[in-house]
Amino acid sequence: MPPLTHLDGVTTDLLSRAARVRLACFDVDGTLTDGRLVFDSEGRELKAFHVRDGQGLALLRQAGIAVAFVTARGGDIAERRARELGAQACVQVGDKLACVRELARQRGLDLDAVAFMGDDLADLGVLNAAGFAVAPADAHPWIASRVHWRTRARGGEGAARELCDLLLAAQGQAEIALARVLSP
Amino acid sequence: MPPLTHLDGVTTDLLSRAARVRLACFDVDGTLTDGRLVFDSEGRELKAFHVRDGQGLALLRQAGIAVAFVTARGGDIAERRARELGAQACVQVGDKLACVRELARQRGLDLDAVAFMGDDLADLGVLNAAGFAVAPADAHPWIASRVHWRTRARGGEGAARELCDLLLAAQGQAEIALARVLSP
Amino acid sequence: MPPLTHLDGVTTDLLSRAARVRLACFDVDGTLTDGRLVFDSEGRELKAFHVRDGQGLALLRQAGIAVAFVTARGGDIAERRARELGAQACVQVGDKLACVRELARQRGLDLDAVAFMGDDLADLGVLNAAGFAVAPADAHPWIASRVHWRTRARGGEGAARELCDLLLAAQGQAEIALARVLSP
Amino acid sequence: MPPLTHLDGVTTDLLSRAARVRLACFDVDGTLTDGRLVFDSEGRELKAFHVRDGQGLALLRQAGIAVAFVTARGGDIAERRARELGAQACVQVGDKLACVRELARQRGLDLDAVAFMGDDLADLGVLNAAGFAVAPADAHPWIASRVHWRTRARGGEGAARELCDLLLAAQGQAEIALARVLSP
Repeated sequence: MPPLTHLDGVTTDLLSRAARVRLACFDVDGTLTDGRLVFDSEGRELKAFHVRDGQGLALLRQAGIAVAFVTARGGDIAERRARELGAQACVQVGDKLACVRELARQRGLDLDAVAFMGDDLADLGVLNAAGFAVAPADAHPWIASRVHWRTRARGGEGAARELCDLLLAAQGQAEIALARVLSP
Repeated sequence: MPPLTHLDGVTTDLLSRAARVRLACFDVDGTLTDGRLVFDSEGRELKAFHVRDGQGLALLRQAGIAVAFVTARGGDIAERRARELGAQACVQVGDKLACVRELARQRGLDLDAVAFMGDDLADLGVLNAAGFAVAPADAHPWIASRVHWRTRARGGEGAARELCDLLLAAQGQAEIALARVLSP
Repeated sequence: MPPLTHLDGVTTDLLSRAARVRLACFDVDGTLTDGRLVFDSEGRELKAFHVRDGQGLALLRQAGIAVAFVTARGGDIAERRARELGAQACVQVGDKLACVRELARQRGLDLDAVAFMGDDLADLGVLNAAGFAVAPADAHPWIASRVHWRTRARGGEGAARELCDLLLAAQGQAEIALARVLSP
Repeated sequence: MPPLTHLDGVTTDLLSRAARVRLACFDVDGTLTDGRLVFDSEGRELKAFHVRDGQGLALLRQAGIAVAFVTARGGDIAERRARELGAQACVQVGDKLACVRELARQRGLDLDAVAFMGDDLADLGVLNAAGFAVAPADAHPWIASRVHWRTRARGGEGAARELCDLLLAAQGQAEIALARVLSP
């Protein structure tokens, strides 16, 4: 398997946290996007997801890891993108920790089996509780200093894909994903 | 409290200016946005705000610091975003200094208690008068050389959040904001 | 001819691969775009191509090199942009290698005469088979480590143009393109 | 006057070219924009101009220097933005040199009094003829090697403003613009 250079320096502790994950939850704005909230003069909102994050989330699902989006904002766009990727979308979430606890409970998991990726204050409670807490490179310093792992990429520019790659690698699923493509 | 590395090197003078602020005013294009004026082929305009700036402005309001947007352009988008954040929006402003003087007067404040953040010529008058004058990292050189503080982030990429963080830190409100999240 | 500094360090092997190309195929998202999948709150999708990539693709066609877009996603936008540039668009492609084999067969070419540029897992099969396999600077590491050449520019920021420039230079067409402009 | 650090290193030759300019012409895509051609799934096009470029173009006009946009693409968006700034817009231009010659002739100017800023092949003819030929930092190498001056900023990120600042400085108009703001 070719090296995943963006995973250089990942410690044994991180690998063992990653190996336990059965549910990967992602904040949306600033994590799956670059944080830009785009509005037009007629009241529409726009949001940009990254195609390589989407590929990573699809690989997680093929490897049997559940994926959820958890956002405090309203969420037609997030819901549509989640649906496209076979992920669950929780929108207008006031208490992200309660939401993620419930997502885990529904799957019979405890929080040790949950990865959460987020970038700002509203993610702090759930990041403190999740088995694997991850932040994009440009997360707010309050968050960046409190997570287990920070990605090299910024939110919306492949940060989520790095987490997907780490989860797949830690669970022996990266070779399987590659083999599926190379000898279909 | 985890360190706010983007505030490293803030001087005592800046902290005392920040401690006096009761009203924080922000230019929009180039300050709360990255300066892009997006137009579509049917005459609509689009504008991108940053989610982490929005979080910072919400924290200011919770700390009792008033927030206003002050822009020379027309402003359906700016007004909608301001409303979402509980901020006041002054649009199509010809004379920003007169506008900010009036905003201050309505609150019984003098300009010493006003922070203004802007990036270009139309902001220069009010920046020269405000108690705390701030510019994003990519402000025009005419502005950058005349403000009290320049942020590390560029406009629309978290510059406004840095000012929010400094105001909160200088007023002892950062710990309060964190505590509200960590032990709700 | 002024130097093409972005081609510095191109080896003889790369030049001879480039000299054989009669059909240049491009993945769309992450290759001709920066990977952002933009959605609005009414279900529209948006995509950003780069004007200098378009100029390069137009020059390829003037030099007699066929151009095709090959994307796994649905593709009104890709089809419209391809049409504007006189390129062929293959959209919702499940098996990119099969698609490119057919594009080559229709032109009586074998895969040695095909360049393919892509950035992620879905491109790996065809990249392994193409005579000249190229990735943008920010391709996924699985791809970046398996192609003949990586451009200096990232996807959507001129990566495709670098491939066009290399193909034109290797085939003695760069001077012709310049002369056409300078002495029309 | 505060220093314009982005003009450091400007030579006497450049200053004398800049001092003669009475008409400043700008390519649009890649020069006044970052080169992104954005399309939506219903056939609309979008384009992003920079607010600080717009301020610079407004200052040119106040200083009596005419401004024109010259683009090969169709141009509802370019025309609307030009109108907003009091600039002339020439769209769907096949021969930019002929267009600029005519713009100059209408004002009784010869090409020595014309600045042209462009980033790619279609701009090369007029750049070779203009009294002051300028390219953004990210222009194609064919262009970058043939102009009198390259800006530090990339297209759409303030490149045009740097040219405006240089023209104003070379013509003694920068102090006037600042004074107008500081003592209205």
